[in-house]
Amino acid sequence: MLSKNEIKDIQSLRHKKFREEAKSFVAEGPKITGELLMQLPQQFKKLYGLKEWIEENRHLITKVEYDIVSETELERLSQLQTPNEVLAVLHYFESNEPAVENELVLYLDAIQDPGNFGSIIRIADWFGIRHIICGEGCADLYNVKVVQASMASISRVNVFYDEELQWLNKQVVPKYAAALDGESVYTTSKKDNGILIIGNESKGIQSPIMKLIDQKITIPKIGEAESLNAAVATGIILSHLLKKL
Amino acid sequence: MLSKNEIKDIQSLRHKKFREEAKSFVAEGPKITGELLMQLPQQFKKLYGLKEWIEENRHLITKVEYDIVSETELERLSQLQTPNEVLAVLHYFESNEPAVENELVLYLDAIQDPGNFGSIIRIADWFGIRHIICGEGCADLYNVKVVQASMASISRVNVFYDEELQWLNKQVVPKYAAALDGESVYTTSKKDNGILIIGNESKGIQSPIMKLIDQKITIPKIGEAESLNAAVATGIILSHLLKKL
Repeated sequence: MLSKNEIKDIQSLRHKKFREEAKSFVAEGPKITGELLMQLPQQFKKLYGLKEWIEENRHLITKVEYDIVSETELERLSQLQTPNEVLAVLHYFESNEPAVENELVLYLDAIQDPGNFGSIIRIADWFGIRHIICGEGCADLYNVKVVQASMASISRVNVFYDEELQWLNKQVVPKYAAALDGESVYTTSKKDNGILIIGNESKGIQSPIMKLIDQKITIPKIGEAESLNAAVATGIILSHLLKKL
Repeated sequence: MLSKNEIKDIQSLRHKKFREEAKSFVAEGPKITGELLMQLPQQFKKLYGLKEWIEENRHLITKVEYDIVSETELERLSQLQTPNEVLAVLHYFESNEPAVENELVLYLDAIQDPGNFGSIIRIADWFGIRHIICGEGCADLYNVKVVQASMASISRVNVFYDEELQWLNKQVVPKYAAALDGESVYTTSKKDNGILIIGNESKGIQSPIMKLIDQKITIPKIGEAESLNAAVATGIILSHLLKKL
């Protein structure tokens, strides 16, 4: 049985303020938990699983502290509508200020939707992008919906917050922006280094950032949809810019 | 004031069974409602909006029946966590069995996640794909989450259900599948016609469908992520197969 205080501590991680204080966050469900356990057991503060899950996964949890919980307890801990067998409290990942030289990195401008943000982390990881820099107005990396959508890619991509644009302002590498009125992804050349900036799908890229752009890049529209979601656009543009054969 | 029966009827549209009976579904929020009002006012059975929304949008609702509702009423009608100014009950769109000749269409195999399904409808609409055929195990088109994620693209793309694969089995055009072990999207030729089959990101494409495939197509992985979500993969593959300059 979990103590009231332990439950309360875990529940408090729903709020960014308490996550920052504890430098800890929650990941839920067998998929992401399992992948993180295999790769980074040292990140786990504690894991809470249903009896059956714990018994089936004993080989994964030899190095982590855990508790067996009831379904009711898991429901109380969970931030999801449908709690899923296991939940873990993990230490924040290290984040560092990226030095961009011979690689392409992503810069997100006001990507508020946590599902989109998490998806973008996973896409970056697929394409071997090592750094994501978040400008003003992005979702918090450790929001449970970001964590869930990123899968375990959250552990492999360095996410750095640049809310005052100080980092962006001092970069001298080429800056590309996803926009509706740029050069087609089909004709633009392969990019081996620089910063690809992705804006909010309804507001576009904010003007202080737009001023820094060297080239705008567009996914030509053939049909009628008003826009693509930011994660889908990121995936399409990256696939064309990297053009790896 | 709405009657109890009217509220109950709208709430019943949360369930596929009642949607099928009424051939009606719910769309929520100013964005999708506004776009549908401009394009297809005849699809609206009735619209329910907060006083301010109705007053600002009188020009859009000249041809539709509407009621002004209170915030409390809107909350009772809404299927969203945060109800958003306006909600409409609409007639089902017409759906027809596609004849595929000189175009590319999408075939979805077990795309259960409504957000992914809705996103794929929007992507199809962006790329001018006119038909999506849903094999076994896809989400219901009129699930509120599908509707919200599709934006108004749901009104422009024909979605046809083929749960027993009868349609797919009789098609003679080339069939392409998104897979992890196929030809690279970077080297594959432009496709002007055929069927692009997208499977569930965790289970892949089911074997009865896999047998029908002429060519597998892969998004080369550079980094470490286990998979891309089905909507992102669809967007990337379509952008390469269509290769419009």
